[in-house]
Amino acid sequence: MNPNLSTFTIADFGCSIGPNTFHAVQNIIDIVKLKHLKESQEDSRVAPLEFQVYFNDLPNNDFNTLFRTQPPSSKQEYFSVGVPGSFYGRVLPRNSIHIGNTSFTTHWLSKVPEEVCDKNSLAWNKNYIHCNNLIEEVTEAYKVQFEKDMGVFLKARAEELVPGGLMITLGQCLPDGVAMYETWSGIVKDTIGDCLQDMATLGVTTEEKIEMFNLPVYFPQVSELKGAIEQNIRFTIEMMEIVSHPLEAVQLSNNFITSMYRAILSTVIERHFGGSVVDELFRQFAKKLSEHPIDFEKCKKQMVYHIVLKRK
Amino acid sequence: MNPNLSTFTIADFGCSIGPNTFHAVQNIIDIVKLKHLKESQEDSRVAPLEFQVYFNDLPNNDFNTLFRTQPPSSKQEYFSVGVPGSFYGRVLPRNSIHIGNTSFTTHWLSKVPEEVCDKNSLAWNKNYIHCNNLIEEVTEAYKVQFEKDMGVFLKARAEELVPGGLMITLGQCLPDGVAMYETWSGIVKDTIGDCLQDMATLGVTTEEKIEMFNLPVYFPQVSELKGAIEQNIRFTIEMMEIVSHPLEAVQLSNNFITSMYRAILSTVIERHFGGSVVDELFRQFAKKLSEHPIDFEKCKKQMVYHIVLKRK
Repeated sequence: MNPNLSTFTIADFGCSIGPNTFHAVQNIIDIVKLKHLKESQEDSRVAPLEFQVYFNDLPNNDFNTLFRTQPPSSKQEYFSVGVPGSFYGRVLPRNSIHIGNTSFTTHWLSKVPEEVCDKNSLAWNKNYIHCNNLIEEVTEAYKVQFEKDMGVFLKARAEELVPGGLMITLGQCLPDGVAMYETWSGIVKDTIGDCLQDMATLGVTTEEKIEMFNLPVYFPQVSELKGAIEQNIRFTIEMMEIVSHPLEAVQLSNNFITSMYRAILSTVIERHFGGSVVDELFRQFAKKLSEHPIDFEKCKKQMVYHIVLKRK
Repeated sequence: MNPNLSTFTIADFGCSIGPNTFHAVQNIIDIVKLKHLKESQEDSRVAPLEFQVYFNDLPNNDFNTLFRTQPPSSKQEYFSVGVPGSFYGRVLPRNSIHIGNTSFTTHWLSKVPEEVCDKNSLAWNKNYIHCNNLIEEVTEAYKVQFEKDMGVFLKARAEELVPGGLMITLGQCLPDGVAMYETWSGIVKDTIGDCLQDMATLGVTTEEKIEMFNLPVYFPQVSELKGAIEQNIRFTIEMMEIVSHPLEAVQLSNNFITSMYRAILSTVIERHFGGSVVDELFRQFAKKLSEHPIDFEKCKKQMVYHIVLKRK
């Protein structure tokens, strides 16, 4: 660390409303404090350090909840700020961040690739609501969007980080050769799609609306992820660890799955289908799950990646 | 400006939800840009400048509205961040701000001085809901709190500003020798107090609740304000202009006055008396105003101060 450094800045990109973001940030601070303590014992010129944490998410994120549920300022070891803006673009000044963090965010694309909603395209994803890797052209369209978005994400972070700064990226991916429809979370989204189809039959929504609906979500295979990361020449890869997904090891209850996916998807579903659809959809989904529980044993496993990049 | 400077930081303390804060900040940016343009024409080493603006207010401020109503990022010339926390204390790292601004905020004290709610104190403000300067001991209690708060405010800002940084402070004060009860806004608050008394008679609220209610608001006289500012030895006073209040010159309509004071006071009234009181209170207030309109000609005038401090 620069002995003159007096403020250490950390940013969490895609922080949501907490509390996970507070834990992630605190972990980083604890480690930096240890390192700083050691250095200041060895070198008396080292200045005392203050921490500033930038919590970033989209402007429609509930920052009020984030700010009101954060640790009380008396217990807080950092100055806390909120940064409204899409991380697919610059949200902070040049050379202003020492450590960036993002956890399970970059599978949310900046948008649904246009082709998958285009009736005249080979990549039209008519019968599904997400990229389940059953249609090659759909996968390709999503993959292109993912690579583009990841490029934009890393370019922006490279500008925001100081030289030598670290970017910690956690996320979910697929082993090479594994398709989303073979994983339990892929099956969940296909089942939600089936429920929407049932609701169209009952007149609660329409076929046309479903045909035009796709989730802006893509989980890359390991080699695609590596390729996208290596594209950015302003970072060196300090660490890349790809391990089993912690939720793969446990048999999840149907209630847990229903609540989890309702929390994840209700906003995007509500925006497309209207608010009245959500309750009924997840009622039907819970029913279908109880009739046909997911056989976790038979599902292919997803992976979690843990990457540390260093700004050149 | 330092030719190596690449990020210029501005903070607005007590920003509320906009849009005034956006105008204030934009004015500052326009001026800094002009100065920077001139310097970069004269000296080719001057780096291009990015702006970062810190919008500060209490954690219960509606930052969601602030973030969603700010100019779209495409038109914005700055990176925008929200800072939740009381400005009566540090909210930003040391030496991190080039220009601080605060507009009509520091009359809101950090708390109501305890004596004015204490039945056993000479400073008990039994019959009034604010410091109208009718009781000397009440005025003294409020004055002491104001001086303490202003001291804390300036100490925190002195630490947050870079050496040479500017702190712009706008606010409202009284000419020496003028009492709040002689001004139209003092009369307004006394009238609101009278309406609460009427409501206690009708059983909508109680005498006891009113006796325990005081606004955490104090408008200093010019000499008190100057004294409080001069206390802080880490600033030089670059400019101190005290002019008529722009609202003094116009005859305000009763509707305008009612809406204005409802907007200013409803949160603090609701917190003490409960939400059910607010509608009825301002209905009664509007009625009283129409029966006894304020005679603006007879009121003593308030002042607006405009102070620029420079961090030594």
